Amino acid sequence: MIEKGYQLLEQNYDNMIDVRRYLHQHPELSFKEFKTAEFIANFYEKLGVEVRTNVGGNGVVARIKGGKFGKTVALRADFDALPIQDEKDVPYKSKVPGIMHACGHDGHTSTLLHVAKVIYELKDELPGTYVFIHQHAEEYAPGGAITMIEDGCLDGVDVIFGNHFWSTERVGHVLYRTGPVMAAADRFTITIKGKGGHGGYPHLTKDSIVTASQLVVHLQQIVARRVNPIKEAVVSIGKFVADNAFNVIADTAELVGTVRTFDEDVRNNIEKEIKKIVSGVCLANDCEYEFDYFRGYPPLVNHQEETEFLATIAKNIPDVEEVRKAEPRMGGEDFAYYLQHVPGTFFFTGAMPEKEEARFPHHHPKFDLNEKALLIAAKTLFTAAVRYHEVGK
Amino acid sequence: MIEKGYQLLEQNYDNMIDVRRYLHQHPELSFKEFKTAEFIANFYEKLGVEVRTNVGGNGVVARIKGGKFGKTVALRADFDALPIQDEKDVPYKSKVPGIMHACGHDGHTSTLLHVAKVIYELKDELPGTYVFIHQHAEEYAPGGAITMIEDGCLDGVDVIFGNHFWSTERVGHVLYRTGPVMAAADRFTITIKGKGGHGGYPHLTKDSIVTASQLVVHLQQIVARRVNPIKEAVVSIGKFVADNAFNVIADTAELVGTVRTFDEDVRNNIEKEIKKIVSGVCLANDCEYEFDYFRGYPPLVNHQEETEFLATIAKNIPDVEEVRKAEPRMGGEDFAYYLQHVPGTFFFTGAMPEKEEARFPHHHPKFDLNEKALLIAAKTLFTAAVRYHEVGK
Amino acid sequence: MIEKGYQLLEQNYDNMIDVRRYLHQHPELSFKEFKTAEFIANFYEKLGVEVRTNVGGNGVVARIKGGKFGKTVALRADFDALPIQDEKDVPYKSKVPGIMHACGHDGHTSTLLHVAKVIYELKDELPGTYVFIHQHAEEYAPGGAITMIEDGCLDGVDVIFGNHFWSTERVGHVLYRTGPVMAAADRFTITIKGKGGHGGYPHLTKDSIVTASQLVVHLQQIVARRVNPIKEAVVSIGKFVADNAFNVIADTAELVGTVRTFDEDVRNNIEKEIKKIVSGVCLANDCEYEFDYFRGYPPLVNHQEETEFLATIAKNIPDVEEVRKAEPRMGGEDFAYYLQHVPGTFFFTGAMPEKEEARFPHHHPKFDLNEKALLIAAKTLFTAAVRYHEVGK
Amino acid sequence: MIEKGYQLLEQNYDNMIDVRRYLHQHPELSFKEFKTAEFIANFYEKLGVEVRTNVGGNGVVARIKGGKFGKTVALRADFDALPIQDEKDVPYKSKVPGIMHACGHDGHTSTLLHVAKVIYELKDELPGTYVFIHQHAEEYAPGGAITMIEDGCLDGVDVIFGNHFWSTERVGHVLYRTGPVMAAADRFTITIKGKGGHGGYPHLTKDSIVTASQLVVHLQQIVARRVNPIKEAVVSIGKFVADNAFNVIADTAELVGTVRTFDEDVRNNIEKEIKKIVSGVCLANDCEYEFDYFRGYPPLVNHQEETEFLATIAKNIPDVEEVRKAEPRMGGEDFAYYLQHVPGTFFFTGAMPEKEEARFPHHHPKFDLNEKALLIAAKTLFTAAVRYHEVGK
Repeated sequence: MIEKGYQLLEQNYDNMIDVRRYLHQHPELSFKEFKTAEFIANFYEKLGVEVRTNVGGNGVVARIKGGKFGKTVALRADFDALPIQDEKDVPYKSKVPGIMHACGHDGHTSTLLHVAKVIYELKDELPGTYVFIHQHAEEYAPGGAITMIEDGCLDGVDVIFGNHFWSTERVGHVLYRTGPVMAAADRFTITIKGKGGHGGYPHLTKDSIVTASQLVVHLQQIVARRVNPIKEAVVSIGKFVADNAFNVIADTAELVGTVRTFDEDVRNNIEKEIKKIVSGVCLANDCEYEFDYFRGYPPLVNHQEETEFLATIAKNIPDVEEVRKAEPRMGGEDFAYYLQHVPGTFFFTGAMPEKEEARFPHHHPKFDLNEKALLIAAKTLFTAAVRYHEVGK
Repeated sequence: MIEKGYQLLEQNYDNMIDVRRYLHQHPELSFKEFKTAEFIANFYEKLGVEVRTNVGGNGVVARIKGGKFGKTVALRADFDALPIQDEKDVPYKSKVPGIMHACGHDGHTSTLLHVAKVIYELKDELPGTYVFIHQHAEEYAPGGAITMIEDGCLDGVDVIFGNHFWSTERVGHVLYRTGPVMAAADRFTITIKGKGGHGGYPHLTKDSIVTASQLVVHLQQIVARRVNPIKEAVVSIGKFVADNAFNVIADTAELVGTVRTFDEDVRNNIEKEIKKIVSGVCLANDCEYEFDYFRGYPPLVNHQEETEFLATIAKNIPDVEEVRKAEPRMGGEDFAYYLQHVPGTFFFTGAMPEKEEARFPHHHPKFDLNEKALLIAAKTLFTAAVRYHEVGK
Repeated sequence: MIEKGYQLLEQNYDNMIDVRRYLHQHPELSFKEFKTAEFIANFYEKLGVEVRTNVGGNGVVARIKGGKFGKTVALRADFDALPIQDEKDVPYKSKVPGIMHACGHDGHTSTLLHVAKVIYELKDELPGTYVFIHQHAEEYAPGGAITMIEDGCLDGVDVIFGNHFWSTERVGHVLYRTGPVMAAADRFTITIKGKGGHGGYPHLTKDSIVTASQLVVHLQQIVARRVNPIKEAVVSIGKFVADNAFNVIADTAELVGTVRTFDEDVRNNIEKEIKKIVSGVCLANDCEYEFDYFRGYPPLVNHQEETEFLATIAKNIPDVEEVRKAEPRMGGEDFAYYLQHVPGTFFFTGAMPEKEEARFPHHHPKFDLNEKALLIAAKTLFTAAVRYHEVGK
Repeated sequence: MIEKGYQLLEQNYDNMIDVRRYLHQHPELSFKEFKTAEFIANFYEKLGVEVRTNVGGNGVVARIKGGKFGKTVALRADFDALPIQDEKDVPYKSKVPGIMHACGHDGHTSTLLHVAKVIYELKDELPGTYVFIHQHAEEYAPGGAITMIEDGCLDGVDVIFGNHFWSTERVGHVLYRTGPVMAAADRFTITIKGKGGHGGYPHLTKDSIVTASQLVVHLQQIVARRVNPIKEAVVSIGKFVADNAFNVIADTAELVGTVRTFDEDVRNNIEKEIKKIVSGVCLANDCEYEFDYFRGYPPLVNHQEETEFLATIAKNIPDVEEVRKAEPRMGGEDFAYYLQHVPGTFFFTGAMPEKEEARFPHHHPKFDLNEKALLIAAKTLFTAAVRYHEVGK
């Protein structure tokens, strides 16, 4: 059965690439992926597969029932693109100015469509039910996962698997990790409100630039002193703006930053510590402040059994040369929400381009995938879906 | 003679106000005061006074020779306006959107024109020579004084007097001060060049916001630790800009600030100390930097003898209720350059509006003068010019 | 065989306690443990076991050859005490003023002696060779391990096991961890040399207190910004001394601190970053400095196979209720050196006193062990030593 | 009369030096100047002058009534020494180990005694009354002036003059200044109370060293941002002590410092701002604190009329080569209290040693006076006392 699936996937390899390249040329931004959703739905309809559209927004969910008794396995791919100008010089370059698939979601989508196609072909011999979750809006919090879940995409699902291509890992490598693997990614804004005035008369003012600078310096202590050294944490300020003439003392300064954590206690504690430091530094400097803390995606925590299962089956796929443990990554991913509802795992498939000059990190204007990775990911997802029914027997 | 002068000035009071209000309605920005210069030149030409235009730019210099032997006395008024929208509700409100006389230069000019008119009327009975320096571009460094001096406006001049109205001092008050009275006003720009990156991976970056914040904090030491406590000094940062997304680490941060001093050694030392701190903090943070220090006007240092003379004659002017010592001000003024060439003094004439709701500081969008101050300043300048010939006899 | 060993250990339980209490009453400081070494050597000689003294200092090494073919297994216990006044109220309280066994090394030693005794009794039936490493000077870097290794204590050894009691973990619990489990513990000293003077004349001085304070603040960035967030690291300053009169500016300030890491690259990088920050902050403040970085014990890195073996055999010991993964600890331990030469693992045996009022952390003046833990550790070490010969078969 | 006085002073010059050298060899610490007080009292008694001892402590006050009608003029000299070891190599070196006249109070005393002697000789021809205030304990706040005033030393006094030798000003120079001339000298202590712990576990502690360092850095803002730039102010920390082992996090850190100001508003404001910064920084760092602010001597503010009078009479003394305006000094002086009760002035008499290698600042272990200065100061005090009766006539 597995062998037959691999052969069918190999026969579909050219189509996989065609679909990926078509999507690559027609990227759409998060929450605006109308045509991509339509494309996906059409693909299923042409196959004759039952498909539900507008799931929690632009989400598309297809469902294939196997001929035998078994579990319900979900596979998820995201399909939104990024507000980045494609700077690659390839025939399948983005046709939309300022928008590109710079994170590989085109590949995720094409892979999943063809896994579905093959499963559909083999459905009579397969146990269980297969749910194909095509998720919109992964790139922009609050993301598409929450509303798709609310809209029932996980109903009846026993397990979920998700793949992410990784352009800095070699083709043939599959990376897994039990427990936290992608960070919680929060955003905070601090507005320091001093009292402006003439640069020559500081004593008549409350200098919001000095206060905000003291604050930035003080915030370094959170990770350095107030988080358990064996826990991961980052507090970064990306924006500091107080834009006045040279001879003025700033009335207001705005700071915007991010907090990255893997542990809910650490996360809660950091929010509390930022607030404490802001209030203390503002007290010391006689300034007022506004503090807003927005919680982005939670940490993505892979389940142990499913992760070990994935690692095991990956090792037996012929094209897979190496299966190894991933290090945690400080980026965020809303696949995290699915794993709060059902067991599952999120894994990485190496997709480093062959030519060295074509290798760029995700979100780079010259980002590209090695398309061979699509076949490997397809086999991994297929195997996971089909063999999961044996687990626990 | 003095008495006759006062009477003539009083007779010209209404004209003084008319001219001031005309100028108030037609303000022009520094270095672009073409029509104001023409207006001034016309005024002198109509009187029949010899006038030189385009002196060191838009400057206008008139010269009147008295009938008796004496010294050459210069009186100076500036005539540029500011890029501020006039928000007053008065009939003589600025007619130029976004530009207004928010510092009283219209009053300075009208006052000086009428002093010149009266001196011209009395010239046969007066000793010495009178030079009327109408200076453009006081509000914007490098200012108009330098080039007017280079173009000869001080040639043969023995002494110079300059008046500044002050809207927060009562009408009837004249303020003088020997020695430094207006600060050197310098500008500096520091660009911190780190290495940008993803907010979740600080160890792969060089965080320019943290570096710049450390720098701002560190700069506080200059005034607190490195300047003689009995010397005046200010180092202020007015602009701190690193404007990125929340999840980014800033590649570059820009700081712009001002240094105010009264003592050349202190000034030189502060420039040196800023440079030292920037280089040290950048070394500690592995960042590059650009540092630019632009010297604005030097401190305005009044000469003792001329200042005491001015204070003495001011006390005898009937409309003057109080003559007192001014505190040094941290603002800048390019009258400073004249005093580097010839003796003289720069004094302040109280011009606080009668109605409390009309009282605003200089450079405020609702700034206005009490026009009674024009007559007082006119009498003070007239007396100083005419009686200076007795000094040292 | 295992069962017989457990019975013999149980029969020796009272002796174990007696020896532990004797040692507890006669503690000796690191590098001065002459009598303790003699006591240990006597114990072996009385048994008739070959013993080598003065190994790399005060170290004692005993060796027992089993009657069958097998590997050479080393077990290690440390035997030095700490400069802390014993404040417990127990009959076996330290008799030496200011010195006590506040870390459980008395227990480690007694346990190992009785494991050796039992192995000696069973030697004819046992495979392989058993090496009992009694190490002096664990509490004070550079420690005793290095010189004992240089003096041959690991010669021919195939594997090493070490136990540490832990007073905050329950009796019956055994904790293991593959990879880094105890931190590298380094020490650094920074002397800031400014220029002293009168507190009223800061501009004539170089303020070493302000400079050192800026430095302490700046050092927070190392962990917060310059270490990979998924790596553990601590930089702490324990001592800041500049002790002058209130009206003086400090000539010199002394900082002493510690760096804790688990990764050699992180460790090297932190040393480099401290140096960079010191040199930058001193440049910014025109101060000189001395910087000394002393490398303490390296991180203790347990080997995977041996750790998993230990965890497995521990689960089968009847008295062991729970075997679980330990979190890394930021303390240091020179067992680390043995593991740089031979495979092995260092584990923790819960030793929390029964009475809540007797529970104190290690190094506390009221620290005590639950003596039941001795028997559990003895069984664990015995089992590990005897069953290791089966590994890899 | 003045001339006769000068001649008598010159005749007494050798005695002046003898007395000064005797005192120099027998220095006594503040509040313990029992024998020096006795010496002074004996001097007056031998002359036959009415003398009051134990005035407000060890103070001695003599009073001489002139033969003519006039004002009551007080002259003050202090007579305590310092806890410094005399390191000069001169015959009149201190005989008391660890104590020396390192500030010239021996010279002040001898000068005043001989001025009194001459006034006593001339008393019949002199107008008014002369009060000689020999004050103990100037070097150590709260000083002797307060209690001497409470004990009546200023009763009936119309004016007071005080002289201070200055070893870095040339002999022949007299320095005066109207208004503030010596600073208010306050002392503050801040104890930061965090929560100590192991250096490897910062998250379990509240790091008092980091908190205190942030505080020191933050305090720089007071002078840099919160004091009018035209006002003098210093905030210095002289002591920072948190003395622990390298691997510990400090429970407590102690800061001790001084505040120097000339203006009561600035002084009050600085105390308030320190408190604000301490409370804010401690809030940000979750630490407790103790803050103690002790007000030392107030600023010494010379009265204008008396200062100008002193400058005028000094110019006419033959030995005086130059009379010039002094800059304010950041040191403190409890002569300040007398000037809060009666008009007067405190002036400086140049006393720089002839040999360059003998020139040291006050409070230096090799400090010495040029004894020629004693005669100049004597003439100045004598003239001021005798001619003050003409003032206002």
